[in-house]
Amino acid sequence: MSALPRFFSDYQQRVSAELGRLLPQRDGAVERAMRYTALAPSKQVRAVVTLSCADLCGAPAERAVPAAAAIELVHAASLILDDLPSMDDAPLRRGRRANHLEFGEAIAILAAFGLLNLAFGTLARAHDPPLAGRLAALTSGAVGPDGLIGGQALDLLATERGIDFEMLERIHRGKTGALFVAAATSGALIAGAGPDAIAALAAYAKNLGLAFQIIDDLLDVEGDPAETGKAVRADARKTTFVSFSGLDGARQLALELCATADRALAPFGARADRLRELSAFVAARRL
Amino acid sequence: MSALPRFFSDYQQRVSAELGRLLPQRDGAVERAMRYTALAPSKQVRAVVTLSCADLCGAPAERAVPAAAAIELVHAASLILDDLPSMDDAPLRRGRRANHLEFGEAIAILAAFGLLNLAFGTLARAHDPPLAGRLAALTSGAVGPDGLIGGQALDLLATERGIDFEMLERIHRGKTGALFVAAATSGALIAGAGPDAIAALAAYAKNLGLAFQIIDDLLDVEGDPAETGKAVRADARKTTFVSFSGLDGARQLALELCATADRALAPFGARADRLRELSAFVAARRL
Repeated sequence: MSALPRFFSDYQQRVSAELGRLLPQRDGAVERAMRYTALAPSKQVRAVVTLSCADLCGAPAERAVPAAAAIELVHAASLILDDLPSMDDAPLRRGRRANHLEFGEAIAILAAFGLLNLAFGTLARAHDPPLAGRLAALTSGAVGPDGLIGGQALDLLATERGIDFEMLERIHRGKTGALFVAAATSGALIAGAGPDAIAALAAYAKNLGLAFQIIDDLLDVEGDPAETGKAVRADARKTTFVSFSGLDGARQLALELCATADRALAPFGARADRLRELSAFVAARRL
Repeated sequence: MSALPRFFSDYQQRVSAELGRLLPQRDGAVERAMRYTALAPSKQVRAVVTLSCADLCGAPAERAVPAAAAIELVHAASLILDDLPSMDDAPLRRGRRANHLEFGEAIAILAAFGLLNLAFGTLARAHDPPLAGRLAALTSGAVGPDGLIGGQALDLLATERGIDFEMLERIHRGKTGALFVAAATSGALIAGAGPDAIAALAAYAKNLGLAFQIIDDLLDVEGDPAETGKAVRADARKTTFVSFSGLDGARQLALELCATADRALAPFGARADRLRELSAFVAARRL
């Protein structure tokens, strides 16, 4: 298994350091629960997308670090919710016991709330006014009923009923795709990119996000818990891309989505090579 | 029982109309659950504080309506969380079945998440850039571990153990006071008020918020569910200001806090009469 590219681990380190700075340091239960999930080992793919897009559009990655960290805070909040007994009731996440098993359900819910809140506080404090507002509006759109929360709600219904492929895709465009798109768009906005560049990067991220989710479904069936940090077949009772299309079909679909993602990068030429490396790593199931 | 002052019902109507506009209209479960609590009958005291403070500091109340609505969205989110089985496990709120009893726990949690998210989206979209950032930072501070979430976490621990008066006060400065202070400060900021005016209004709101909570504890014991919209003695297993100081002691404390709130208004003279009417209504247990 080839190592992650240098830029990738460099970005991860910056975002981890930023998260360490942003998260509350005190020893209260909520503060500990917030740090527990937000600082747990993670590939921080969404943050890497933000920093790569900022870099591609001409901003020093430095300037996009707070927005990248905010995206990871939102993502960490969604993981806590996802694992709750009333949602997926999952025992293991990022190689650790789920937040609610470690801290109790009430504190876990408050921690998720606190992480979302900190994400918006970070955007408001760390970025210049007009940009901060655009990033917050963008993030709010990605989290709301048309994004993460909407996808999660559809997913709850889907667990109870049979669903078709279109619905499965809609769930994951909400649960995963929306935040990937916000991650890419945030990076581009910070660099002052124009609408064409933003649209291209959003298309890249939308397809990459869906591919990422399909790989996640594959790893749920085939993966090693020591590497995925989650229980194997945790999603067995759910309709996934694997239960729908089979292992081969799901693999094929993920590869096609990565190829579609790459095609959206054509206008950038070789400058988008980092994003291509990223999709290649997703396609190779290295992320 | 005397009617609410004219300005009060005028402010309520504006905020209700704004909430109706802001909330998602679609018929999904999360959207309905968001509307269910955020549009349920409510006195909207926090929003009225925001609009009154904006007016006092010279801004047309109009301009503060989105921020006032955002504060009410945050408050509605906190009510949903507060009532969850893992928190207070309360059956009745705003005269209706608790959100999780109506929609199930998972959707209720997502709705609370969605309301907090909408609050930040609203601040980002509805206010001019530099102001929007300050309002979002302020709100994030009031919601975080030093405010609402921190107070709620302390409250959870307090339900399990005995606590002293200082801790009881700390809980409610977080759970209730922080958002009242943010409500007042938001209104003042929107009007471009200086630090002295902001500090005075924050002091007013801090004391008013605590008085409001104590009255809430009194109504929990003595109130009519048809008026409070909550079950009587829902907080019986908790340490409240009433269980600590007795009915007379709690009444006395609420009156003293309202008097302290009013003293903070001295620099404004008669211009602060609306805020004095507000604290008089709280003291008279009309809110």
